[in-house]
Amino acid sequence: MKLASLRGAHRDGHLIVVDRALERYVPVHKIAPTLQAALDRWDEVEPQLRAAAEELESADSVHARRFDARACSAPLPRAYQWLDGSAYLHHVELVRRARGAQMPASFLTDPLMYQGGSDTLLGAHDDALFVNEEHGIDLEAEVAVITDDVPLGTASLAAAAHVKLIVLVNDWSLRNLIPAELAKGFGFLQSKPATAFSAIAATPDELAGAWHDGKLHLPLVSQINGEVLGRPNAGVDMGFSFYELLAHAARTRKLGAGTIMGSGTVANRDPARGCSCLAERRTLEVLEYGSARTPFLKFGDRVRIEMLAESGSSIFGALDQQVVRARAEL
Amino acid sequence: MKLASLRGAHRDGHLIVVDRALERYVPVHKIAPTLQAALDRWDEVEPQLRAAAEELESADSVHARRFDARACSAPLPRAYQWLDGSAYLHHVELVRRARGAQMPASFLTDPLMYQGGSDTLLGAHDDALFVNEEHGIDLEAEVAVITDDVPLGTASLAAAAHVKLIVLVNDWSLRNLIPAELAKGFGFLQSKPATAFSAIAATPDELAGAWHDGKLHLPLVSQINGEVLGRPNAGVDMGFSFYELLAHAARTRKLGAGTIMGSGTVANRDPARGCSCLAERRTLEVLEYGSARTPFLKFGDRVRIEMLAESGSSIFGALDQQVVRARAEL
Repeated sequence: MKLASLRGAHRDGHLIVVDRALERYVPVHKIAPTLQAALDRWDEVEPQLRAAAEELESADSVHARRFDARACSAPLPRAYQWLDGSAYLHHVELVRRARGAQMPASFLTDPLMYQGGSDTLLGAHDDALFVNEEHGIDLEAEVAVITDDVPLGTASLAAAAHVKLIVLVNDWSLRNLIPAELAKGFGFLQSKPATAFSAIAATPDELAGAWHDGKLHLPLVSQINGEVLGRPNAGVDMGFSFYELLAHAARTRKLGAGTIMGSGTVANRDPARGCSCLAERRTLEVLEYGSARTPFLKFGDRVRIEMLAESGSSIFGALDQQVVRARAEL
Repeated sequence: MKLASLRGAHRDGHLIVVDRALERYVPVHKIAPTLQAALDRWDEVEPQLRAAAEELESADSVHARRFDARACSAPLPRAYQWLDGSAYLHHVELVRRARGAQMPASFLTDPLMYQGGSDTLLGAHDDALFVNEEHGIDLEAEVAVITDDVPLGTASLAAAAHVKLIVLVNDWSLRNLIPAELAKGFGFLQSKPATAFSAIAATPDELAGAWHDGKLHLPLVSQINGEVLGRPNAGVDMGFSFYELLAHAARTRKLGAGTIMGSGTVANRDPARGCSCLAERRTLEVLEYGSARTPFLKFGDRVRIEMLAESGSSIFGALDQQVVRARAEL
């Protein structure tokens, strides 16, 4: 089943069920007005949503309308929790190596994870607004899962049952603001403006054999202005599964329904797979040439992130955003 | 005007208007079902809510019911954003001095601030659940403000207009988990379980002369098992006003309606005012005696946080919580 949120008068959008081919949808606001409302009582509404999805898939439903991802917000236009792990340790190791630091051994067992801002989440085609190019604008292509209520102390095995939906993410980052914020120890704040999400949130069964062991085993393709930056496989070199990331977060507190858990920037050890962020490519350039050659993003650049099924069809729809100078709203 | 959220079938509670004396309330769900809904369109609903408050105050309204803070959740039982500054630099300096570290000069101009978990916010009388006493359970008594939409790039002068409500906070902390998390640089995650809030969220005018320059100039009283731990004045030694904290957060992104901004642990330089957390008292003991004498909290302990008007009446109602061992929910 594929879900999305249509923009409307309400800040939280209107829940719709989308067909597998991303061509048609049916409104399901009578089942649950918003995706958050659906997640709040998932066990009750899931069968009804699945029935709507099956009807849409099998018949030429009279209620079906033409799907346009541009009319959608993020599946959750705002969320009560956006946590982002850093599960691809190759990425962590590389970035540290470039500044002459080693990765502590504890990072192999104790995942890096930060609490992200979730009051505004961008849709897949929304402009990405930034104040200043000098901040070092960068993408971070990721996979994320969305949960129902996760009890305090949930172990990784038990966490599997709480993964209800899967999405793609662009965790926009301001590289030149990160070092000073990390040095303070309090996490990312100014250096991580609003994060963007694919229009489609898919249930794990939509990924068929590609979703297992809490990892999504398909390439994640990132492009800048039409050129491929990387296509690493999200199931390869992921040091912590989503189940382990959820267990880490739930160690001392429960996680509310609608918690979004990110994988961190997808990165493979195989250099032929390319990168999911410019920081990593620049690090490789520093290691190879002594200095970075690829600049960070400029106003006007377009960033596209997509995951294709083996059949070649787009699973979540593409994130396709333009980097835009923020105008003063004041 | 004083607002609160009555627990009910809905996760986000039911908005009520409470009288100044905290004795009576009227439901206002016809004006806005929840506090978040009110903040989403504050300019439109504020006059109606104020009219209900005035009627409650002036007359023996037939709709008025007896107010019981125990029937209330946090004003926002879950929020889209909970940011916490660390504006009382004396607190920051002390904690660092105890471990032989100096406070960087940049801390005087660049506030510490972290993104807190906001998917579950505790009510003023909710049990505070923790897994293990060995984690070093501690209170942090704070003041916080709640905003409407704050545009990207809002300067501190302009931020004043966005402060709609004021609340008290207990930012529960697990001291023994903090050093390892701070060392990772990614902020607090396991070390900051659910935060608790006063039942009452008051508009700034309720504080009369005590609210000015983006600071709340009244003592914040913290007690453990009936003994006073401290009564520092929240308006004294606050290195950054709430307006400055909001401007810091809004430098690279807008802040959504319902953003909660905390002051950090209230602390005065005058030692006679006591402390708002045990970490600070223990630091003073280390500096004076060479080792800490006061233990962290134990299961069964009660923590009370309150702010009284000059008349002696409780402005926000007390936070009065018991420290309780979390039972496995699994």
